Amino acid sequence: MELLTINNVWMMICTALVFFMHLGFAFLEIGLTRQKNTLNILFKNIFIITVGLLLYCLVGFNLMYPGEFNGFIGFAGFGLDAVAAADLAYNEGYTYWTDFLFQGMFAATAATIVSGAVAERIKLVPFMIFTVIYVGIVYPIAGSWKWGGGFLDGLGFYDFAGSTLVHSVGGWAALVAVWLLGSRIGKFKDGKPQAIPGHNIPLATAGVLILWLGWFGFNGGSVLSADPALTSLTLVTTCLAAAAGGVVAFIVSTVMYKNFDLTMFLNGILGGLVSITAGADQMGPTDAIIIGTIGGALIVFAVSFIDKIKLDDPVGAIAVHLICGIWGTLAVGIFGAMAGWDQFLSQLIGVGSYAAICIVSSFIIFFILKKTVGIRVSEKEELEGLDGHEHGMNAYPDFRMNEH
Amino acid sequence: MELLTINNVWMMICTALVFFMHLGFAFLEIGLTRQKNTLNILFKNIFIITVGLLLYCLVGFNLMYPGEFNGFIGFAGFGLDAVAAADLAYNEGYTYWTDFLFQGMFAATAATIVSGAVAERIKLVPFMIFTVIYVGIVYPIAGSWKWGGGFLDGLGFYDFAGSTLVHSVGGWAALVAVWLLGSRIGKFKDGKPQAIPGHNIPLATAGVLILWLGWFGFNGGSVLSADPALTSLTLVTTCLAAAAGGVVAFIVSTVMYKNFDLTMFLNGILGGLVSITAGADQMGPTDAIIIGTIGGALIVFAVSFIDKIKLDDPVGAIAVHLICGIWGTLAVGIFGAMAGWDQFLSQLIGVGSYAAICIVSSFIIFFILKKTVGIRVSEKEELEGLDGHEHGMNAYPDFRMNEH
Amino acid sequence: MELLTINNVWMMICTALVFFMHLGFAFLEIGLTRQKNTLNILFKNIFIITVGLLLYCLVGFNLMYPGEFNGFIGFAGFGLDAVAAADLAYNEGYTYWTDFLFQGMFAATAATIVSGAVAERIKLVPFMIFTVIYVGIVYPIAGSWKWGGGFLDGLGFYDFAGSTLVHSVGGWAALVAVWLLGSRIGKFKDGKPQAIPGHNIPLATAGVLILWLGWFGFNGGSVLSADPALTSLTLVTTCLAAAAGGVVAFIVSTVMYKNFDLTMFLNGILGGLVSITAGADQMGPTDAIIIGTIGGALIVFAVSFIDKIKLDDPVGAIAVHLICGIWGTLAVGIFGAMAGWDQFLSQLIGVGSYAAICIVSSFIIFFILKKTVGIRVSEKEELEGLDGHEHGMNAYPDFRMNEH
Repeated sequence: MELLTINNVWMMICTALVFFMHLGFAFLEIGLTRQKNTLNILFKNIFIITVGLLLYCLVGFNLMYPGEFNGFIGFAGFGLDAVAAADLAYNEGYTYWTDFLFQGMFAATAATIVSGAVAERIKLVPFMIFTVIYVGIVYPIAGSWKWGGGFLDGLGFYDFAGSTLVHSVGGWAALVAVWLLGSRIGKFKDGKPQAIPGHNIPLATAGVLILWLGWFGFNGGSVLSADPALTSLTLVTTCLAAAAGGVVAFIVSTVMYKNFDLTMFLNGILGGLVSITAGADQMGPTDAIIIGTIGGALIVFAVSFIDKIKLDDPVGAIAVHLICGIWGTLAVGIFGAMAGWDQFLSQLIGVGSYAAICIVSSFIIFFILKKTVGIRVSEKEELEGLDGHEHGMNAYPDFRMNEH
Repeated sequence: MELLTINNVWMMICTALVFFMHLGFAFLEIGLTRQKNTLNILFKNIFIITVGLLLYCLVGFNLMYPGEFNGFIGFAGFGLDAVAAADLAYNEGYTYWTDFLFQGMFAATAATIVSGAVAERIKLVPFMIFTVIYVGIVYPIAGSWKWGGGFLDGLGFYDFAGSTLVHSVGGWAALVAVWLLGSRIGKFKDGKPQAIPGHNIPLATAGVLILWLGWFGFNGGSVLSADPALTSLTLVTTCLAAAAGGVVAFIVSTVMYKNFDLTMFLNGILGGLVSITAGADQMGPTDAIIIGTIGGALIVFAVSFIDKIKLDDPVGAIAVHLICGIWGTLAVGIFGAMAGWDQFLSQLIGVGSYAAICIVSSFIIFFILKKTVGIRVSEKEELEGLDGHEHGMNAYPDFRMNEH
Repeated sequence: MELLTINNVWMMICTALVFFMHLGFAFLEIGLTRQKNTLNILFKNIFIITVGLLLYCLVGFNLMYPGEFNGFIGFAGFGLDAVAAADLAYNEGYTYWTDFLFQGMFAATAATIVSGAVAERIKLVPFMIFTVIYVGIVYPIAGSWKWGGGFLDGLGFYDFAGSTLVHSVGGWAALVAVWLLGSRIGKFKDGKPQAIPGHNIPLATAGVLILWLGWFGFNGGSVLSADPALTSLTLVTTCLAAAAGGVVAFIVSTVMYKNFDLTMFLNGILGGLVSITAGADQMGPTDAIIIGTIGGALIVFAVSFIDKIKLDDPVGAIAVHLICGIWGTLAVGIFGAMAGWDQFLSQLIGVGSYAAICIVSSFIIFFILKKTVGIRVSEKEELEGLDGHEHGMNAYPDFRMNEH
């Protein structure tokens, strides 16, 4: 009983920290975009966390953890199970309620990742429809394949806290959405990418620090108990990978662009965090630093590459969550406890499986939306800002702004 | 000993989270008002939390928990009790020190609620005098009626974490203060309410997310131990009510005003949170969603109604804290463990008793202040902003502002 | 095992809270300076936390806790010790990993304190060099003298959570750096100090509240276990000293300058927090209020005195961290459990020893940097802002700014 109590306290704190990541995402996304779309982005983030939780209660939790199932899709019924909830033998690491809430906080994250990538030009209503389907159905079904005990779990695929199950799941949809949406007006001139500077760097920086803090819960809570050795090791590998990712992205970008680029530093930290997430419980400090180092370097090259192939991702979400998500997942096969060719292959199969379900499902959703209601705002709305058109409000009405 | 340790850890964390709500309130209040009064609002918030804690140490704690008393008013003496503090058998859920600090963090909240409602036109010194009396004396005496074991506790009145004892206590004073103060210049033109947009929506949004995070501690800590079943149930009902309140306020306001109004979404979340607070430990997930749904809808109608009767509440504090506080308290009689006519009646008596003490005491305080030092700044000061006049400073001196 | 688990949970939470203080420092420092140097300050803060953690992993931890050593300097080797880490008997209060991470979060704080004092005119690269040496070598060696079991520990010197070991260590370097750097252009006109208002008071206020929250972990975690009596007492003394410091600084500055100065209120809170830090576990509530009161008053006089001797410290770091750090350390000899002349003398010796190592080492570092690469940006760069020159970016590109 005492052990359950302490484990459950830890898990509730981690739940709170993961919840707080939604402020981190919100700050990061608005900070790296223009003020005229601020309110719109905040609206999407608030929509995702509230609707995401309700959907996870209605269907998501029971899609993701269906109990015995065929390994591909299962459903334990609508709503939460008060009988299971009453049984404190449910798990020695947490109660039924804590389990639901911790996992529910994760669920909303996937859509939030997409939100940043499609910012400044997506229509609000189709984005909300996408969110409902992706958070409510795609994410939990995909999640059941591994964390729900599905077929990938049987194949030895390992993803500790979601480099693939959360970050890549968001990242693949971001990639598809960005491709179908097209780039923002003015992003590419004569085929060359143009910088569109974010309007509030203090909030972007705060967003990254809040996300880092939230990762204490995201990874620390994925131990699923307060086991002192595992949880504390996880926090150390998480923080070292974050630090290494940031420093390396800063160094590489300074060498390449002769400029102390804070945005790269920040995205490097996030790249390190996403990279360590799949194996944070299996690495030593040195492994963590290496994984973060590669993650940080990948960020700089990926951001440049994504620009080169003319995809417009305002906040770098594809580089951070998809590229580093894949890297972190594969890294488990290189550095993890079971490292080796077999594990690496399992990781590859996992990455491929999630690529398949995410690309296919998000393509279908966005393609249908594009052909029906349309997914892109009008040119006039984009130029004048989504805040005025979709919301009839302004994020900073007392401040004078530059036109652009 | 181990159980005390773990319980006490949980309570200390919850204390920290409730403390952090003061940043949430500060961000929300400045975000929803004009930049020219920002520093003034921050000053009030910082004053409330610091002075509130000192007063709670000096008199509040011993007024609220006087031990054996007549049920209406009691006082166990000035200052804290080092003898009680030394006894670890004080309570199995927390130490004396934790008890004091957790309750002290609650105390300051009541005045903070008022702060938002009276923003942009109240004089600083009378507001500070009100705070000292209301936080130091009224709040703890009122609190003793239920949480201190007073007469309402005997009557079966239930208020788990303070829909009434904290939120309505703030809300009633806000109502009285707003009525005595009058509306801001320009709020009503030809009898019609005019929108006065808040100057920093990102900070207002952050404020709500921080408040939601803080509610993990506000409600989770009100279990007064780390009991795994109760604490985790409480977090689930709290989050589901918040989500439902937000979504419903967004839907209702979109239908009514054909506009995706982020402010309503945010206040709906707060409405859901306040609504669930009185019975967060007694509800199932479905109850929580229903209670939050009604709370969210109430917000939209209450904000409109308060406008209609020409009360000017810049941040919607009366709708959120008073109306939803009453609703949440009554909901315990409808959905709670002891639901039924008897319980409902007890809840009504509780609501009425707190209405009486709060309306009377805040009216006396504000009325005397109005007739002596005055409570409203001059027209010139209001138009030019309180920051320059009361503080000789500016919240954003490097930024160019629009005049209004 | 259960006790280790619960202790370790508490220590991990405290670690997260101390980490979060870096956002507090970042917000405070940018809030109290001009917008044209915002990105530069954020860059420094992000650099400090990331590089600081990596250095603490590489050398710092083993310099600070070298095991058996001569009491002045010792080194247990590069990197972390996986063997020690595997042993859960390492300590009953935390695991090896938690120990490293908690202490690592402290290490970065010292350089962050300097960052604020030298803001708006220091060159980035020399500051980064200073950070590497000071965080990587000076801080841990100085720390070993007391917390590592060195000669000051033998002499009875007491510093619970770092009024001296963290805050003064940062404060002395800030003093030396400010003196070598000189004041910002325009700070002193005809020998009179000129106010250079901070550009974002909401973020400065948020910074202080986040720092206060972080102090729950800074002091609460310095108990090095979750001992219910000690941890909760520590939180109470910490919060009361913060409150008293703020209120007294507000009152004194209002009397002296006839102005409700929010900045003084905020720095008074920090002064109270730094003052209580050396003895937060040894004081009663009344002691804490007295210590905070004196700390708050010291802030007002110290800020004025530092102006008078023509040192330019944009954020008041010397007053807060050095002056109150010294006061708090000496207060242990006056109010602490072993109060008396012997203890006071031990405290004086401690203060003097840290003054010596910090002044000498930071002088050598900054002096060499000044004579080689230079430590001050050009006049043109200072006037136009460091953001454009060092980073080629702007913190708020969409906003129109006043020139100054």
